Amino acid sequence: MKPINISEKFKLFSKHWTPKKIGELNGQQLLLAKIKGEFIWHAHENEDELFFIIKGSLIIEFRDKTVELNEGEIFIIPKGVEHKPIAKEEVHVLLFEPLAIKHTGNVVSNLTVETFENI
Amino acid sequence: MKPINISEKFKLFSKHWTPKKIGELNGQQLLLAKIKGEFIWHAHENEDELFFIIKGSLIIEFRDKTVELNEGEIFIIPKGVEHKPIAKEEVHVLLFEPLAIKHTGNVVSNLTVETFENI
Repeated sequence: MKPINISEKFKLFSKHWTPKKIGELNGQQLLLAKIKGEFIWHAHENEDELFFIIKGSLIIEFRDKTVELNEGEIFIIPKGVEHKPIAKEEVHVLLFEPLAIKHTGNVVSNLTVETFENI
Repeated sequence: MKPINISEKFKLFSKHWTPKKIGELNGQQLLLAKIKGEFIWHAHENEDELFFIIKGSLIIEFRDKTVELNEGEIFIIPKGVEHKPIAKEEVHVLLFEPLAIKHTGNVVSNLTVETFENI
């Protein structure tokens, strides 16, 4: 039970596409990720996923539209909806999602991280 | 499915201690609150509660310690833990908690809001 300082936590890692866990509550987890480049198309069958942009601009492609998210903006992707995040420059993002989730959803790729490290 | 801009949402209301709902996912809800002054002592029997300080400094008193939270800091209060938020100046906070929660927890007071308005 202590304060979690987001900027301090972001200083603890640099690898892209490798979410780190900073807390959990009510069966959900709070992750931080640094992302740059293109991720893969994927969907989460059973989990809604929340992106909160802490720094930078993130593009999320959907099959029928493209959304640009800027600092201070939140986006909730409902379960089952295919999406592909793209970051032209490095983006810092806070993710909120169920404990059981895989960040690559229904797709297993070389980007898939099985367990998120606590920081 | 559209971006939720936190600063724009905060412009839509001014009343203190009256959380507004800006989204929900996985049985959880995302609330914004403006708070100033002292809240009441309460606990949430079954729900952990997350505070994310967007603006200002929030003091949370516990029975055994006092924590000061500043902008960019997150704090998770485990279920059952009595707490009392105090804001000397206005604080803008993002709350993340289960849909079923009452913000005054186990205590019903004149501050209790039965249903959180969507904004």
